[in-house]
Amino acid sequence: MSAAPATGGTGLIGTSVLRKEDDALLRGRGRFLADLRLPGALEIAFVRSPHAHAEITRIDCAAARALPGVVAVYSWDDIRDTVSALFLEAEMRIPDQVREAIKPLSRLQPVPLLADGRVTCVGQAVVMVVAEDRYLAEDAVELVEVGYAPLPALVDPLDALAPDAPAVVPGTEDNLAISVEGRVGDVDAALAEAAFVVTERYRSHRYVASPMETRGVAVTLDPRDRSLTVFASTQTPHRLREVIAGTLRVDPDHVRVTAPDIGGGFGQKGVQYVEDVLVPYAAHRLGRAVRWIEDRTENLTSSSHAREQVHDITLAADADGRLLALRDDAVLNLGNANLTGLVVPYNTLTHVIGPYVIPALDLRVRGAVTTTMMATPYRGAGRPEAVFAMERAMDRLARKMGIEPHELRARNLVRPENMPHRTGLMYRDGTTQTYDSGNFPELLRRVVGHLKIDEIRERQRTGDVAPGKRLGVGLALYIEGTGLGPFESGSVTVLPTGRIRVATGASSQGQAHQTVFAQVAADALGVPIDRIDLREGDTGVIGHGVGTIASRSMVTAGNAIHLAALAVREQVLADASGLLGTAPEDLEIVDGIVRPVDEPEAGIDVAVLAARRAPLLVPGTSTGPGAVISETTFFKPPTVTVASAAHGAIVEVDERTGKTEILSYAIVHDCGRVVNPMVADGQVTGGVMQGIGGALYEEMEYGPDGQPRSVTYMDYLVPTAAEAPPYVLDHIETRSTLNPLGVKGLGEGGAIAPPAVIANAVEDALGPDHVHITRGPLTPSRVKDLLRAASSARH
Amino acid sequence: MSAAPATGGTGLIGTSVLRKEDDALLRGRGRFLADLRLPGALEIAFVRSPHAHAEITRIDCAAARALPGVVAVYSWDDIRDTVSALFLEAEMRIPDQVREAIKPLSRLQPVPLLADGRVTCVGQAVVMVVAEDRYLAEDAVELVEVGYAPLPALVDPLDALAPDAPAVVPGTEDNLAISVEGRVGDVDAALAEAAFVVTERYRSHRYVASPMETRGVAVTLDPRDRSLTVFASTQTPHRLREVIAGTLRVDPDHVRVTAPDIGGGFGQKGVQYVEDVLVPYAAHRLGRAVRWIEDRTENLTSSSHAREQVHDITLAADADGRLLALRDDAVLNLGNANLTGLVVPYNTLTHVIGPYVIPALDLRVRGAVTTTMMATPYRGAGRPEAVFAMERAMDRLARKMGIEPHELRARNLVRPENMPHRTGLMYRDGTTQTYDSGNFPELLRRVVGHLKIDEIRERQRTGDVAPGKRLGVGLALYIEGTGLGPFESGSVTVLPTGRIRVATGASSQGQAHQTVFAQVAADALGVPIDRIDLREGDTGVIGHGVGTIASRSMVTAGNAIHLAALAVREQVLADASGLLGTAPEDLEIVDGIVRPVDEPEAGIDVAVLAARRAPLLVPGTSTGPGAVISETTFFKPPTVTVASAAHGAIVEVDERTGKTEILSYAIVHDCGRVVNPMVADGQVTGGVMQGIGGALYEEMEYGPDGQPRSVTYMDYLVPTAAEAPPYVLDHIETRSTLNPLGVKGLGEGGAIAPPAVIANAVEDALGPDHVHITRGPLTPSRVKDLLRAASSARH
Repeated sequence: MSAAPATGGTGLIGTSVLRKEDDALLRGRGRFLADLRLPGALEIAFVRSPHAHAEITRIDCAAARALPGVVAVYSWDDIRDTVSALFLEAEMRIPDQVREAIKPLSRLQPVPLLADGRVTCVGQAVVMVVAEDRYLAEDAVELVEVGYAPLPALVDPLDALAPDAPAVVPGTEDNLAISVEGRVGDVDAALAEAAFVVTERYRSHRYVASPMETRGVAVTLDPRDRSLTVFASTQTPHRLREVIAGTLRVDPDHVRVTAPDIGGGFGQKGVQYVEDVLVPYAAHRLGRAVRWIEDRTENLTSSSHAREQVHDITLAADADGRLLALRDDAVLNLGNANLTGLVVPYNTLTHVIGPYVIPALDLRVRGAVTTTMMATPYRGAGRPEAVFAMERAMDRLARKMGIEPHELRARNLVRPENMPHRTGLMYRDGTTQTYDSGNFPELLRRVVGHLKIDEIRERQRTGDVAPGKRLGVGLALYIEGTGLGPFESGSVTVLPTGRIRVATGASSQGQAHQTVFAQVAADALGVPIDRIDLREGDTGVIGHGVGTIASRSMVTAGNAIHLAALAVREQVLADASGLLGTAPEDLEIVDGIVRPVDEPEAGIDVAVLAARRAPLLVPGTSTGPGAVISETTFFKPPTVTVASAAHGAIVEVDERTGKTEILSYAIVHDCGRVVNPMVADGQVTGGVMQGIGGALYEEMEYGPDGQPRSVTYMDYLVPTAAEAPPYVLDHIETRSTLNPLGVKGLGEGGAIAPPAVIANAVEDALGPDHVHITRGPLTPSRVKDLLRAASSARH
Repeated sequence: MSAAPATGGTGLIGTSVLRKEDDALLRGRGRFLADLRLPGALEIAFVRSPHAHAEITRIDCAAARALPGVVAVYSWDDIRDTVSALFLEAEMRIPDQVREAIKPLSRLQPVPLLADGRVTCVGQAVVMVVAEDRYLAEDAVELVEVGYAPLPALVDPLDALAPDAPAVVPGTEDNLAISVEGRVGDVDAALAEAAFVVTERYRSHRYVASPMETRGVAVTLDPRDRSLTVFASTQTPHRLREVIAGTLRVDPDHVRVTAPDIGGGFGQKGVQYVEDVLVPYAAHRLGRAVRWIEDRTENLTSSSHAREQVHDITLAADADGRLLALRDDAVLNLGNANLTGLVVPYNTLTHVIGPYVIPALDLRVRGAVTTTMMATPYRGAGRPEAVFAMERAMDRLARKMGIEPHELRARNLVRPENMPHRTGLMYRDGTTQTYDSGNFPELLRRVVGHLKIDEIRERQRTGDVAPGKRLGVGLALYIEGTGLGPFESGSVTVLPTGRIRVATGASSQGQAHQTVFAQVAADALGVPIDRIDLREGDTGVIGHGVGTIASRSMVTAGNAIHLAALAVREQVLADASGLLGTAPEDLEIVDGIVRPVDEPEAGIDVAVLAARRAPLLVPGTSTGPGAVISETTFFKPPTVTVASAAHGAIVEVDERTGKTEILSYAIVHDCGRVVNPMVADGQVTGGVMQGIGGALYEEMEYGPDGQPRSVTYMDYLVPTAAEAPPYVLDHIETRSTLNPLGVKGLGEGGAIAPPAVIANAVEDALGPDHVHITRGPLTPSRVKDLLRAASSARH
């Protein structure tokens, strides 16, 4: 990886252009939501439920309203008549053939803006207080009296699906809100003839995105027409605009959603929350600027959770170690709302098979409603959970066969010569799930090389380990469908000033869009990268967009910008051709100058061409469309592109403390064509660190009473740079065949494998004959429990 | 004129659709600048010069700065290093051939944002005070000490051009800032053979636009990136954006200029002022919302003036009353800045000839700098002054010949069969001045009929007049080049909601754009007018625009919207054709439904077509451009269209008081195709009332010391509805051949003729043999002076 200065011209793609955004960020000139000055803005605080599950018997806001400085106090009864019922539904429309093939049940339910007679989660918003400042608002929150009649909590998803479990959502018969299935071949027959079969239960524990910046919403009113400008730490401004306009019953044109600098999203900011609507509601109703900044406890308890799944998995192989069948029956904990429908369950369903050829599949994923915080996609979105189950089972199967885990994997990988590969499952978009390209054996070969597994085995055999330490090695592979549709927008405009304005509906939360999209546009157009200005995260600059979620932006927005820039290039060449008397095919654009290939000094700046097109102060030069050199495209990927990676780790476990140290972490990543290697490495590294957090430190546990046990960073342990292991980061590039740039998605991948990798490595260290790791995180106490259990089993 | 309810469908053009804007305005829901709530905004007041002309010897702001609540006090020295020199230049680019033909001198000069060592006009801004409220700001203004060393004032433009007059602008040799010339034929030869010649000096007195709403600027900062949103009572938001960005040295993308409801502009708000830049400057520098609302005295003294011109005119005819030659040498008073260059002088030069055929022309217009408030275009913009001189001279020539004034005019009008008619002059845009269409004889015939001049003559002859009253009749004709380029923007978008968004760079100040542009778009597209939403007056909604000045908006914006709507119609028909299996030419659009002509029940709503194009949540349906049904056009008129009118008045003058009462005012107007007769009548009527104000009441006089004598409405008399005379308003429609809609401009026309009409009528009443009216306004005291002078001449 080499860093190059930001210089112009073609050939920019594949270069580690320095991040354009860093100058402002490193100098403290970032503008995050809490940095925004909103003169005269009111502040909001929420009364939140202390109970997991309760009927509300009364709400008395009189004392709160009487507090000087309190402007308004709203319960659901105060606002229900002035808003449309909120139905926070972000689910992709399901094509009919998919519905037929996967027999989905997806019972979405309205999320009440404020509790409507019942609370179903600790932290649920019950009353909103608006005051002159946050201190007063918090004081007033204390004065609101809410009466609760507690009901039994329901925390475990398996408990929630028990036949006698009471339904959490009033009006529903049970807690089964989602079920999807996928079958290929005859699993029972395959199991009957298998030489080796493992059947295990693996549990992916609940952990959370925990972005450095919490959520927040700030709203100003246009003094002209009281239209709203909503500043929100959101990954999906356009979707949020729709939700706000629909709920407040205002014209979407009267709502502009704009995302300032955002300190991490990871999916948690990719969905819409009640606060995202309630804060604009207060501004709209009161005619005042209003803001709300989530505090850390709110983020941990009232922003979405993720990852909690239980997998009953069966994996079978023949005598040669060829996989014959996979059966997986997974249950995920939806929490108290099914907000994102099939997204996570179906990701789990279609990713558990991984990079392997398996002729028979019997897969089911169900979602259970519980009295916990709702789960929504978090970096990986159902894939880390599937990979944890599958890659754990692969290790167990290899042990059973007496072969190296990587050897079992090597025997079953899809071969590059068999690409594109079809799994036999139907994908969520109605296509047959297809791996467009990849070289899985090369990923594995390289990661095994980086780990030097043979050396580890030799040291284990010879006891070449520090006293009181155990040494282990583990690895995992995954595939990831990336670049989710349905579309993303991209526009490119040549301004008469010579600057190139690029706009997209994608929205950065740290992905260096300013840099990488500028590379894409500059490369296609042939202008210096410094002339590109990217505008994004703002419904005011482009009418349509989806946002930055699901490892999609380079695939969707990147290609939209690429195509728009190429279309603009055609326009530029046509204009220059007319002026220079040279055929367009005999022209080139270098450093923003269009010039005949054989007469470079006769060039003309694209700015001049734009100025000639723009409505000049000379009449009669042209009439009608085409007065601006501009193009807007919407790139709609035919289906997802399949990125892939192999991760491995060498760990050392301290027998006395139970602490796991990662001695080395190796990644061989394939996201197709890499636009900016430095940025790509940063994305992967960040993902790996979040995966390590989930593997070793982070757990969002609920007690049986439905009380969250991690409500501050004293309890919820997030790794810092100090916990980062030495690592090797290696790329291969098998270009996607599904988009012009040949790129695949990148944002989530790093986070998918680490829980499996580290569990495999720690189990290898502790001794797989005696220890079976079925869940994380592998905290010192849990590791010591495993060691104790293994010791007592042996004695 | 009949008012029809706002109903949809085609055939809307020519219908008096009720004004869409009135519901809000009549209910008090208009949002004018001072209505805008800007929480926490600072307020501004200015220290202004009490001297017409002085050196500034010192400025001491210490006491003002020390006043609690004062946030900032700026003199020029405090800001000069942080802004670009302001060059408020709105002049149209002059094509080379024009420069050659009219030998123009146009010496523009920078207008200093705040006085730079010298003041050249009473009311010039010297120091800007920013405080927590306006009261404090005004108090602080009183505390600023400015030392002045007075210099001689220079008030009269002829004095300013005297060889020994000192130059007002430092660094210039004289006060001649503008000179333009136009010659056709041989005027001296024509004069030598003429049977009748009149040579007179006419003076058009200074009067002002005096909009009901004064100017104002309010600025908010985007808390994300500190970009500026400037709310301004401006007619030209896009131009103002350029001026602010250029002066403040910020990216134009970081300045949005948006015009709220505006209570009249009339050209006064069509130019940019120092306050328009200083208020954003304060906001930008202080990082706070800031506003300034002009008070009435500021509006009268520090917003632009108009109309002051002196014409030495010679008009010659042969024995049959055929005009042979016109010589006019005009000097206009520019005030202390030449802001708009050739606009007004060249309008005067090209409009003095009026609707007449005159074979020989010798025309010159010069502009003189004086120590008075600058002059800029005001409704008519150089034409009322020219018409006053020409139509007064026509009356004098007719008297000399002993024929009816209307008879002299009838003999010399361009005949409709000779259209298009060329005057022989070059127009400002480089074309030969051409009258595209018109029927001047019909205008005259009708106005003579409405006035029943023969009856008036009979009453005059028989003394059929009330005791102590004098009866008179007068008329005038004019032509007006309307629909000035260089361009205007129009865009039409079909939203998936079914609403049609129309945007334009034009910007209403009362012209009913919401209604008339909706008529144009709905008519072209075939949708109900209620589905049209017009967005204008906002650089945030359309990238390019000029604005609403110069009777241009229906010609330029109207045709741009018309063409955009037709292009959108093509797209809609093409889409529907594909769906319905019917050729586009066999489809019609009725009430927003596209349907086969022969199978009307098979229609499809344009909203559905838009939704199908928009990026749906189904992947793979389309890729690339064209996902939105939208078109943007820039209409560039080839040159101006020529509107025309004849006005006439019957007046009764009270010999004792000198008061003139208008018994009847008749207008026959031709603005080509009329889009909304009710709105057109309103425009003409309003213009006539401003013309009557100039003719009878309004004068912005300066004393010889350069002190303005009308600084409140106690001194500056504006007519109200009570002064409105009975009137007849009649239209003929000779469509323009220069644009698809066939329209001509309308906004200014009403104001052009009244000063000439009423002077002609009053002179007719007072006795043209003894009285010669050479200037206005015809106040009671001036009329009594005329009567006294006539009386003493007779005795």
